[in-house]
Amino acid sequence: MSDAHDAVEVISAKRDKHELSDSQIDWVIDAYTRGAVADEQMSSLAMAILLNGMNRREVARWTNAMIASGERMDFSTLSRPTADKHSTGGVGDKITLPLAPLVAACGVAVPQLSGRGLGHTGGTLDKLESIPGWRALLSNEEMFAQLESVAAVICAAGDGLAPADKKLYALRDVTGTVEAIPLIASSIMSKKIAEGTGALVLDVKVGTGAFMKHLDAARELAETMVALGQDAGVHTVALLTDMSTPLGLTAGNAIEVQESVDVLAGGGPADVVELTLALAREMLAGAGRGDVDPADKLADGSAMDVWKQMIRAQGGDPDAALPVARESHVVTAPSSGVLTRLDAMAVGLAAWRLGAGRARKEDPVQAGAGVVWHARPGDTVTEGAPLLTLLTDDEHRFQRALDSLAGGYDIEPAGTSFEAGPILIDRVG
Amino acid sequence: MSDAHDAVEVISAKRDKHELSDSQIDWVIDAYTRGAVADEQMSSLAMAILLNGMNRREVARWTNAMIASGERMDFSTLSRPTADKHSTGGVGDKITLPLAPLVAACGVAVPQLSGRGLGHTGGTLDKLESIPGWRALLSNEEMFAQLESVAAVICAAGDGLAPADKKLYALRDVTGTVEAIPLIASSIMSKKIAEGTGALVLDVKVGTGAFMKHLDAARELAETMVALGQDAGVHTVALLTDMSTPLGLTAGNAIEVQESVDVLAGGGPADVVELTLALAREMLAGAGRGDVDPADKLADGSAMDVWKQMIRAQGGDPDAALPVARESHVVTAPSSGVLTRLDAMAVGLAAWRLGAGRARKEDPVQAGAGVVWHARPGDTVTEGAPLLTLLTDDEHRFQRALDSLAGGYDIEPAGTSFEAGPILIDRVG
Repeated sequence: MSDAHDAVEVISAKRDKHELSDSQIDWVIDAYTRGAVADEQMSSLAMAILLNGMNRREVARWTNAMIASGERMDFSTLSRPTADKHSTGGVGDKITLPLAPLVAACGVAVPQLSGRGLGHTGGTLDKLESIPGWRALLSNEEMFAQLESVAAVICAAGDGLAPADKKLYALRDVTGTVEAIPLIASSIMSKKIAEGTGALVLDVKVGTGAFMKHLDAARELAETMVALGQDAGVHTVALLTDMSTPLGLTAGNAIEVQESVDVLAGGGPADVVELTLALAREMLAGAGRGDVDPADKLADGSAMDVWKQMIRAQGGDPDAALPVARESHVVTAPSSGVLTRLDAMAVGLAAWRLGAGRARKEDPVQAGAGVVWHARPGDTVTEGAPLLTLLTDDEHRFQRALDSLAGGYDIEPAGTSFEAGPILIDRVG
Repeated sequence: MSDAHDAVEVISAKRDKHELSDSQIDWVIDAYTRGAVADEQMSSLAMAILLNGMNRREVARWTNAMIASGERMDFSTLSRPTADKHSTGGVGDKITLPLAPLVAACGVAVPQLSGRGLGHTGGTLDKLESIPGWRALLSNEEMFAQLESVAAVICAAGDGLAPADKKLYALRDVTGTVEAIPLIASSIMSKKIAEGTGALVLDVKVGTGAFMKHLDAARELAETMVALGQDAGVHTVALLTDMSTPLGLTAGNAIEVQESVDVLAGGGPADVVELTLALAREMLAGAGRGDVDPADKLADGSAMDVWKQMIRAQGGDPDAALPVARESHVVTAPSSGVLTRLDAMAVGLAAWRLGAGRARKEDPVQAGAGVVWHARPGDTVTEGAPLLTLLTDDEHRFQRALDSLAGGYDIEPAGTSFEAGPILIDRVG
């Protein structure tokens, strides 16, 4: 295969709006992984793909070539069926934390390989690492054993899965080529297919706080990913969900863990509970266990039991006190009335600037930092009462966080009619 | 300026079809030249420019930024006005050789900075280097002195002119981004404007043997370059000329020098003479010497005198015998009739494969290699008589040269009506 093509030929084909052949795609991914295609050639190709697109066959082949660049996991010998969830990233999106133990409590194993946060959306691993003792890194053998014993694992993805994607993602990040739907879809799906899950539910976020700001683009991404999953034999559905308002009442690390525990204890914000149950039902249906009602497993405490087992299995103490930020700053409501808008991007940026997220991969995050909001759109607020609480270990971070919240919410006079949009916008499957 | 922008911002702007600001363009060219913008970022931007274009202001600013990356020459203290010519590259295009001394003989200095050949079109310096003793490399001081004494210089462009272009051109070559008209135009014009010529004539080739295969694209390139020259205060015109048939009767190095000397002696192929005179007239008009008829200077031997002075000034012996290839192979006409087509690309590839050109910058070229054709379209040919002569030092090169000539010419029955297209297609200025 090594001399079958050359980089300029493949780049020129896509530049000139031709379809790439299977052979061209296999060659360019393999050659890039082994360094025979240079970064400056792959970035030029990525820009041509971003601007000229790929059709369904090309995206499927591209995804398969990235899977073939590394190892594949196989959970078919487990005693339970498997299901996984992927979110395209949102503010306050802690859903993985209650969801994995909840679905496991329903008899379906959840092998959740997660990432760390970069930019204004938090990372699942960053949140869990606020639990004293908890560790994200498991060997494949530890992961497999925990899936059999506890049925739920949330851990870091190993380097062995889709190494081509890892290299390409880092390149896209610095070359203005992140925003290509075929490349986003193949990046997500190559890892999820290589991970070996039997069923997959995609939570595709839409709105100001999401990567996809517009419904059309989110729908195109969802349809592309669902087609890729189905082509690969993974039972795949996607939910399009709202991300113009942040999820729940917290955005941060330890504070999101606490909110997740509240949900597992049968409480928690209504929107977090609604989305957790909706995603759980899709995962259960995809894994052939649509007969189980996950609401029962929240009510009877069995989801909480799995949570504690899962945290302990990875070295954490589920009963330990969570870290608390050293400094806090309360923003009070400037007027009385109805909160009609709380912008997800504004809140996400504030939490990031307070120290909950990182600007570069190697940066640390603060366990206690973040934003708590005391009202959601539709709620009544009173002038002078707390509207937001900002949390950080570094007092000097408050000002930039406040800057990002300026203009991030609207309060209308009492009596203003207001109807919140649904959190579940559509389903693709 | 260093922190004014970042690469992803500039790439994303062009990706999303926005105009780049003056400040963005200045920053990205400067940052790329000093290595703060990486190759993989510049190639992604180049692909976005190729697919989304740049307007006249952007191309002008881009060109100026490349000029500002290096030194500028200034010939305003010379006793004569200056004029230069640039060809976009063709097969058998030896026009610079007779043209520079001819224009100098008419009282206009010609500071011709030339390049070496890459691919199927030959390089002016490669041709002149077949003259024993001649050297291409002059210091700026030597060049200036020769312009004053002889009025004609053909030499290698120094590294000091538009170093950003040099780096960008090498990158475009391996990333499928050569074919962007704004980048072609700014590459050519940044060097020509930095060179400091007062007048410039562009010979934009169109046809199978040219970089531009179609008239529309060639015209767009010509118009873009003329606008850039005029914006920079250089009197600039472009001629669109045919390159579906190779120029003259030879493609190679020493054999093209001989054909050029034939023209300077008052003979030579009609098309080479016609194009040389047309370009000379434009250069003279641009330099304010439109009153001089260059045909007189061919006829009276003064152009030949300048040629000999120019070759001697750079160490060459204009009277020495030129190198001759060790091996030759004659292709005879397969039938009698009228030659109606001789394809420039087929002839160019054959000459290249015989050793007249190079595949990589560091390859040597053969002085004696090339192709001689014994008929031009419209000429009568006789079955069994020589049609082409292939020349090389390596016998094993004949077969691949013959392969590239297969299908490269048509002979129609005697009496077939045939009318050759004009060599001068249009003028932009």
